[in-house]
Amino acid sequence: MPRSAIDHLVQLLGRLPGLGPRSARRVALNLLRHREKLLEPLIEALEGASEKVCECSICSNLDLTDPCGICTDRERDHSILCVVEDVADLWALERARVFRGLYHVLGGVLSALDGVGPEDLKIAALVKRAEAEELNEVILAMNATVDGQTTAHYVSDQLKGCQVTVSRLAHGVPMGGELDYLDDITLQTALKARRPL
Amino acid sequence: MPRSAIDHLVQLLGRLPGLGPRSARRVALNLLRHREKLLEPLIEALEGASEKVCECSICSNLDLTDPCGICTDRERDHSILCVVEDVADLWALERARVFRGLYHVLGGVLSALDGVGPEDLKIAALVKRAEAEELNEVILAMNATVDGQTTAHYVSDQLKGCQVTVSRLAHGVPMGGELDYLDDITLQTALKARRPL
Repeated sequence: MPRSAIDHLVQLLGRLPGLGPRSARRVALNLLRHREKLLEPLIEALEGASEKVCECSICSNLDLTDPCGICTDRERDHSILCVVEDVADLWALERARVFRGLYHVLGGVLSALDGVGPEDLKIAALVKRAEAEELNEVILAMNATVDGQTTAHYVSDQLKGCQVTVSRLAHGVPMGGELDYLDDITLQTALKARRPL
Repeated sequence: MPRSAIDHLVQLLGRLPGLGPRSARRVALNLLRHREKLLEPLIEALEGASEKVCECSICSNLDLTDPCGICTDRERDHSILCVVEDVADLWALERARVFRGLYHVLGGVLSALDGVGPEDLKIAALVKRAEAEELNEVILAMNATVDGQTTAHYVSDQLKGCQVTVSRLAHGVPMGGELDYLDDITLQTALKARRPL
C-alpha cells in the first residue's frame, strides 16, 4: 500500500475515544487539507503538552507544575478535600466554580470486571493525606454509578480511622430535570432523600 | 490560567470535525494518560503525514508520491475516469474495490450558499484530461445531494465538446434498504428509474 503514512495516521486517530474508523478518516483528511491552520498547530500543541504536562504528586491532577496550581494555591481552603474518579471530573467541578477546596484524583474506580483493585487507585495516598494534613472534611464525589458508589463506600471505610468528616454528593432530581424523563432509581432516590421545606 | 498548554490542546482538538468541547477534553485526557502508546506515536504519525503526504497534480488524490499511486498504476484502466467530490469519496470507492479506472477529485461542489464557483473546483483540469487523454468514459460520482447533482449537471455540460461518454451512478433503493424506511424522493427516483426484469 503506498498510502501507508495516511493509513497509519487514520489507524492511530481511530484509537482515540469517540472516534471510529469513519470519523478518524474524516479527521485525517481535514488535517491534511488544513495543514497551516490545523495540522501544524496541533503537532505543536501535542508536543507542548507531552513535554510540559505532568501529574501532581499530591493530588494526581494534570498540570504544568508539580505540585499543581490547585495544591499550591494558598487562597483555596486546605481543610476540605474533594475525591474524584478522574481528572475530567476535577475539570468539571473547576468549570462550575462551585468548590474552592483541594482535590484528590483516584484515577479510576474499583471494578471486579476490569480487574481494578484498591492498590490500583490512589486510596492509600488519600488516607495518608487525611491522617497527616490539617483536614476537616473529605467529600466523596464519585460518579453515581454502581462502581462509583462501591468505590465511595470502600474509601469511606478506609477513612474511618482518620479525624475527618466524610460526606458525599447529594443524589436526586437534577436541576431542570423533568420527572417524566427520569429513570426509576433516580426517582426512588429522590423520594427517599426528600427534605422538609 | 496555569493549565494553558492543556487548554490550548483541547481548543485545537475541538476544531476537528466531529469533536465538540466535551469530546476534545476526553481525547486530550486520554492522550496525556497514554503518552507512550498514543500521544507520542500520534505526534510521529502527524509529522510523517505532514512531511510526506502531497496532492497528486493529475487527479488531486492525497498520496506519498506525485503523481499518485493510482495515476501511475499501469494495471488500472486508463480509459475510464471517475469524478468524485472529495478524497474521502475516492477512498470509499477504493475500499469497496469496485472500480479499477482512474479518478478525478473536484475538491468540493458548486454552492451558491458557500460561494463556491466553477473556478474553485478542478473542473478546467478535468476538461483538459478529457480532451487530451485516451479516455472513453467519464463517470460522475458526486453525492446524491442537491449541490452534488447541480455540480454533476454543470460538469456534464462542460464535457459536451469532448469525445467521451459521460455517465452517472444509478440512484434508487440502496441494497439492504427497506422501503418503509426510505424517504419519498428516493422511492420516487427508484420507481421512475425502474428496469425490466
